[in-house]
Amino acid sequence: MKDAYARAGVDITAGNLAVQRYRDVTSAWTHPDQLGTLGGFSGLFRLPGDGKRALVGSTDGVGTKILIAAAMRRYDTVGADLVNHCVNDILVTGADPLFFLDYLAVGKLDPEVAALVVSGVHRACRENGCALLGGETAEMPGVYRPDHFDLAGTIVGIVDLDAVPDPNRVEPGDAIIGLPAVGLHTNGYTLARALIPEDDYDAPFGATTYGDALLAPHPSYLAPVRAIRAVADVKAMAHITGGGLLENVPRTLPEHAAAVFEQTRWEVPPVMAELVRRGALDHEESYRTLNMGVGYTLIVPVAGVTAALAATPGARVVGFVQPRRDGEPRVVVHPART
Amino acid sequence: MKDAYARAGVDITAGNLAVQRYRDVTSAWTHPDQLGTLGGFSGLFRLPGDGKRALVGSTDGVGTKILIAAAMRRYDTVGADLVNHCVNDILVTGADPLFFLDYLAVGKLDPEVAALVVSGVHRACRENGCALLGGETAEMPGVYRPDHFDLAGTIVGIVDLDAVPDPNRVEPGDAIIGLPAVGLHTNGYTLARALIPEDDYDAPFGATTYGDALLAPHPSYLAPVRAIRAVADVKAMAHITGGGLLENVPRTLPEHAAAVFEQTRWEVPPVMAELVRRGALDHEESYRTLNMGVGYTLIVPVAGVTAALAATPGARVVGFVQPRRDGEPRVVVHPART
Repeated sequence: MKDAYARAGVDITAGNLAVQRYRDVTSAWTHPDQLGTLGGFSGLFRLPGDGKRALVGSTDGVGTKILIAAAMRRYDTVGADLVNHCVNDILVTGADPLFFLDYLAVGKLDPEVAALVVSGVHRACRENGCALLGGETAEMPGVYRPDHFDLAGTIVGIVDLDAVPDPNRVEPGDAIIGLPAVGLHTNGYTLARALIPEDDYDAPFGATTYGDALLAPHPSYLAPVRAIRAVADVKAMAHITGGGLLENVPRTLPEHAAAVFEQTRWEVPPVMAELVRRGALDHEESYRTLNMGVGYTLIVPVAGVTAALAATPGARVVGFVQPRRDGEPRVVVHPART
Repeated sequence: MKDAYARAGVDITAGNLAVQRYRDVTSAWTHPDQLGTLGGFSGLFRLPGDGKRALVGSTDGVGTKILIAAAMRRYDTVGADLVNHCVNDILVTGADPLFFLDYLAVGKLDPEVAALVVSGVHRACRENGCALLGGETAEMPGVYRPDHFDLAGTIVGIVDLDAVPDPNRVEPGDAIIGLPAVGLHTNGYTLARALIPEDDYDAPFGATTYGDALLAPHPSYLAPVRAIRAVADVKAMAHITGGGLLENVPRTLPEHAAAVFEQTRWEVPPVMAELVRRGALDHEESYRTLNMGVGYTLIVPVAGVTAALAATPGARVVGFVQPRRDGEPRVVVHPART
């Protein structure tokens, strides 16, 4: 089925168009200490009075995963989803997290529910060694239904400029290491909600329930990425979020290189296979909407693979970089034979 | 009328209770480089490897002012409201803004509308010399109505630790300088929407319309505050946001000092007088919900007043610090005689 995501109410084309329009309206002025461009995973800002380091900032939300959490009255996990998502977003620049701020908006403020949300934010901040520096709780009747809420957050990290990965160093023959995804993480939930109705959340799904499988927390890749970078020359990294492998990996490749993935090399989590089945999603749509089991990618020279895999349980080679001619796709995923 | 704000759907008691519960759930761990506490205007974080400077972060939203903007289809001003609000929030620590990130959530993404919102964010960032480092646009059908949106943002600034104002230096006899508010800024809109129905937005109100008066942009106090700090010893500052003078000024006072304001010393903007009239708000509620014409306060020794006022058009002395005994109020506003 083509366009299942659009039919579920999320318009990826509008999203890309908005990003283009943002470039238009912001192009007239850029702060002189700003490095990199709008639209990447995160922005870099030269630390004043320090020629060697940059601050890295990123803002994100948990998307409509919160509607599943609200329906299941499970309020203490979405905070960790949010923090870990943000940690991973700045991690692709090589940044260590410094601090985090959250934005919680509710239709009707229940202090106990809000405290559960913030406790999840705080727990994940602590696990990532990141300060919870503050936040805002907004009660907005008329914008949110009484039982609905939204949660977003901003992370700030710091990086040595000479430790920022450089996709221009990526070359054909390099290996792509994947870190496993445990579920949808923080993307694809509008589609998931369209395909798995709320009545199914309590129903058994393998050893778990549909609801629990959908709410599986977004992991932080900080520890495994640090372990790999300690032993291997990591040239580029991608956090596989909205847009999947097809839209996130190209940012880590030079113009004349393509990433070729072999789906036989990793397992697609059951919840993702179920969504593909229920939605009759085609191959392209699956890999453009869902992470399909690969949560984070690192590109390393083949010589570094053995050490990298030994450093990180669960990591595996999921593909290779190949030469690419003009007009050829930036990312190819060869399906497992069925 | 008591509790007009609560009847309009915003529960300030629940807000204070939530802040208390946040302290409970976050008290078990604080990052060692974190300075100050949750619940203030903004949080400070010691800059790694730099003993003299701190980063300052703050997150905020524009609240239900966005519903008025959405009703009037005026999308290019709320971004400036948000940025200027955040600039002022970190300004009370003495911080200079470095960069900003926005979070825009919509029910249905219209790239042109989103670009108007972001253009307002970008314009205000530029005016404050602050990078627009990135942001997130989230399309969340099911959370937001198709024509609704929410806008929040995070600012990061930097401050020399020895330039951070110290409320403990405030003493009886000091003068309180007020910078004028031009309207509601970013607070009290749920109440305003309850008192001024949408049908009135186009109706004339003095030289303007109700809608335009309600949407008057939140100003940045960066330039006037810099001008005053250049010529006077500023001991403490407050950004008058939700909670008004009554709840924001106490944070700038030591335990045994009270701020005593004289309402004869400044003008209450017409839109605020209209809300007080329509809602029959009592004195206490007016000053706990609305800024009532004072957008920002600075406490200076009397000897610094003349230079401070000369440096800043519109600034005026709005009150004085007086001794306070246990049990006495932290803030008193003497009404104008009528």
